[in-house]
Amino acid sequence: MLIIGEKINAARAAVRKTIQQRNESAIIELATAQAAAGADYIDVNGGDERPGAEAANLRWLVDVVQSHTDRPVCIDSADPSAVEAALSLARGRPIVNSVSLEAGRLEALLPLLRRADCMVVALCMSDEGPPKAVEDRLDRARRLVEILVAAGKKPADIIVDPCFFPVCSDPGQAQAVFEAIRRIRREMGETLVGGGVSNSSYGLPGRKWINLAMLTGAIIHGMNAAIVDPCQPGIIPVIRAAEVASGADPSCANYISAHRQGKLG
Amino acid sequence: MLIIGEKINAARAAVRKTIQQRNESAIIELATAQAAAGADYIDVNGGDERPGAEAANLRWLVDVVQSHTDRPVCIDSADPSAVEAALSLARGRPIVNSVSLEAGRLEALLPLLRRADCMVVALCMSDEGPPKAVEDRLDRARRLVEILVAAGKKPADIIVDPCFFPVCSDPGQAQAVFEAIRRIRREMGETLVGGGVSNSSYGLPGRKWINLAMLTGAIIHGMNAAIVDPCQPGIIPVIRAAEVASGADPSCANYISAHRQGKLG
Repeated sequence: MLIIGEKINAARAAVRKTIQQRNESAIIELATAQAAAGADYIDVNGGDERPGAEAANLRWLVDVVQSHTDRPVCIDSADPSAVEAALSLARGRPIVNSVSLEAGRLEALLPLLRRADCMVVALCMSDEGPPKAVEDRLDRARRLVEILVAAGKKPADIIVDPCFFPVCSDPGQAQAVFEAIRRIRREMGETLVGGGVSNSSYGLPGRKWINLAMLTGAIIHGMNAAIVDPCQPGIIPVIRAAEVASGADPSCANYISAHRQGKLG
Repeated sequence: MLIIGEKINAARAAVRKTIQQRNESAIIELATAQAAAGADYIDVNGGDERPGAEAANLRWLVDVVQSHTDRPVCIDSADPSAVEAALSLARGRPIVNSVSLEAGRLEALLPLLRRADCMVVALCMSDEGPPKAVEDRLDRARRLVEILVAAGKKPADIIVDPCFFPVCSDPGQAQAVFEAIRRIRREMGETLVGGGVSNSSYGLPGRKWINLAMLTGAIIHGMNAAIVDPCQPGIIPVIRAAEVASGADPSCANYISAHRQGKLG
């Protein structure tokens, strides 16, 4: 299971302010806490409406995160110039988050992906809108993987994001995303599958419970990459327990190791 | 989802002592706390090595529980005379927990089940030992339902327990039980499926996380009856969230109602 810590995201107003004020200690705290909790990658999103600001934000974020943790970054941007700026500084094998089939997005990022030694999140979005059912997700996943493999990426470097949508607005969403995960894993061999489950709970009270149920269900259906807040109580224990329930941790070695490290709370 | 509160069980040393000492206030506390937390039924297990004691224990337990809650009891015994004693006092439609294909057990309980207006847990155990895989569970479920229906029970009054076994001893257990749940639900229409998931975590540290993952996975695969401790933090919220994720609560009405009642913690 590849765990991507999602907290450094300018979509959250408090973090956006932190980034714009170049409050280094606050970003260090977010990065080191996530690394200590179990994040394998630290997501950095420096979204900013001011022209040119996103690339500068990302450069700063990559530098701060890398100076204080040994985790590679997950570069969370659809802006090719910002991604390029971040990739030029990134150590190890970063993740580019994300490409999709939306017009312009893939074409602009593909040259960068071709050159960089990185992983990539392939989001099942296209100009026809969000995927509606299982087949939509499968079709888009196949097209994205084909394009990325043609650009030189290995299947094991691609994380297909099947798109988690709010479960309250469409009763079939949860089962559709679970089934898509199961089929992508079965059909696409080494390609990883994962995404941010927290969208699932949008519009509902007690969001953490929906997020935990969706995270567990997704892992049981084969999800092996997760964009989560590893510091939130329950997230790491639930991931480790769901890996036991899914058969991904057949000897329970990972689970017992998490216990020994004090990560089951 | 039918929630059976499991706390009044003489297999737990403290509860056994409480029962043997006829500590009424302790039993009232266990019963009312479970009812308040969301139990639809209160399980009563009065297991006792002393001859004749189990029937007396169960009579006392049924009386105490019914005098202080409006929930029907789930009579947890394999001893026909104890079940008979408890059934004679039980109000509403109790559950008999459980019959199985083990020699003598079904034959002895069937006459009681024929006469009583009750539900029944049909445990997929037989003299060939515990079920090993999905097909074992399906075969046994089919035989039990056939026998019980021939004895006059309606499919909707039968709760097939697919048997939850420790996941640490056999890597395939979790997936086998999930798949069995899915197929029993698909094949047997109105028959309920459920059991006690807490056996799954036997032998592992941090048992509550394994129990929550197994509970979520089982509900997502169609489990609609659960023998749980509803007072344990997280159990009721996880059940309600898993019903959303499984599609059993398509409009999220149950989930939102649980929130309004303050049951999501």
